Amino acid sequence: MQERPFDLLNKAIGQNVLIRLKNGLEIRGKVTSFDVHMNIVMDNAEELDGGNLKAKLGTILLRGGNILFISPV
Amino acid sequence: MQERPFDLLNKAIGQNVLIRLKNGLEIRGKVTSFDVHMNIVMDNAEELDGGNLKAKLGTILLRGGNILFISPV
Amino acid sequence: MQERPFDLLNKAIGQNVLIRLKNGLEIRGKVTSFDVHMNIVMDNAEELDGGNLKAKLGTILLRGGNILFISPV
Amino acid sequence: MQERPFDLLNKAIGQNVLIRLKNGLEIRGKVTSFDVHMNIVMDNAEELDGGNLKAKLGTILLRGGNILFISPV
Amino acid sequence: MQERPFDLLNKAIGQNVLIRLKNGLEIRGKVTSFDVHMNIVMDNAEELDGGNLKAKLGTILLRGGNILFISPV
Amino acid sequence: MQERPFDLLNKAIGQNVLIRLKNGLEIRGKVTSFDVHMNIVMDNAEELDGGNLKAKLGTILLRGGNILFISPV
Amino acid sequence: MQERPFDLLNKAIGQNVLIRLKNGLEIRGKVTSFDVHMNIVMDNAEELDGGNLKAKLGTILLRGGNILFISPV
Repeated sequence: MQERPFDLLNKAIGQNVLIRLKNGLEIRGKVTSFDVHMNIVMDNAEELDGGNLKAKLGTILLRGGNILFISPV
Repeated sequence: MQERPFDLLNKAIGQNVLIRLKNGLEIRGKVTSFDVHMNIVMDNAEELDGGNLKAKLGTILLRGGNILFISPV
Repeated sequence: MQERPFDLLNKAIGQNVLIRLKNGLEIRGKVTSFDVHMNIVMDNAEELDGGNLKAKLGTILLRGGNILFISPV
Repeated sequence: MQERPFDLLNKAIGQNVLIRLKNGLEIRGKVTSFDVHMNIVMDNAEELDGGNLKAKLGTILLRGGNILFISPV
Repeated sequence: MQERPFDLLNKAIGQNVLIRLKNGLEIRGKVTSFDVHMNIVMDNAEELDGGNLKAKLGTILLRGGNILFISPV
Repeated sequence: MQERPFDLLNKAIGQNVLIRLKNGLEIRGKVTSFDVHMNIVMDNAEELDGGNLKAKLGTILLRGGNILFISPV
Repeated sequence: MQERPFDLLNKAIGQNVLIRLKNGLEIRGKVTSFDVHMNIVMDNAEELDGGNLKAKLGTILLRGGNILFISPV
């Protein structure tokens, strides 16, 4: 069966990802769940600015519509 | 059964959350209800600016489309 | 039965609310009706700027898509 | 039967309304028809800037998605 | 039967209209067809800037989502 | 049968068109296919700035949502 | 059977493409999968600025809504 983009999210469960948002912000953390809207819950989420830690966010539920791309790290 | 992002909101009922909005604003308060659009009613809501209290908002119904992320606090 | 966000609007019928719009504008007035899109009709609506009265708008039909949050006052 | 926001538009047929758009522009004119998207046809429409007449537009079909609020005048 | 906003477009077939776009641009031309999304094909379309001719566009298919209002001329 | 806006795209297959995008950019090229979202594949696509060639893009798949208007050339 | 825009993506599987985003950013990489929303997974993705390598992104899942156009390279 052909791969589909959401397969990347399935494999990312329990793994760290880096998410670039439409507003330029970057968030890094461990994916614990996601849905069809690409809403994603992350643990130990951190906000990055130019690659540097800007704020520890803890657990967050991120709305999918804000996402530019997601990258496993 | 696998966790889903809205489970985080279910568990947040009666708890305090911090919500970062798309426009950069932050709102903190106690979740009393939510729906599938992520519209959220909060009690004792406070508007924060750079982590500092900017305004007490009381009870609010926040439209989900404005949300960047939600974090239990 | 669990509360839902629109219950707040139901209870607000005949009451005054303060509405913060996405563009920063605030509108205060008495809710007379609403629908599933959060379109709201208000009587004695007033436009506020920094909490000060900017303009009396009378009766208005506000499109829900412009709303950031609604707060009973 | 409970009132609904579109009832305001029904009553506005043949009457003058003032429409504030999302871009800040104001348009005044007589409503002749509307649909579920809040697309509105107005006769003798005028574009206002700070309450002053900026341009006579005649008959226009305004797309509902541009509307902030509508007020009977 | 009550008039509906799209009746204005039906009557505009073969006639000149002025279209104000969300970005402030104005386009004038003869309507040859339209659909439910307000996508419109115009012949002899001209781009106007402050009422002055800026460019001759010929035949164009304009996406409805860009429209602020349409006015028969 | 009445003409519809997408008929213009059907006739444009194999022909050159000029596409003005919402961001002001212009793209010229030969249409090879399109779909109901106005997604368009073009061959020999060129990016224009003020009518001058800015970049040769080759074959592109353009997302329809970015389009302001399409004009046969 | 007539070609459709998504056929270009089907042929691009395993091939390099250049993607121009709405925010002006360019991303180059090898397509491994896509879906009906034009969400695309790319391997060896690189962020380009004015044609120059700005950052190596590795594997990414790009949300389709951010795309201006896609070009095979």
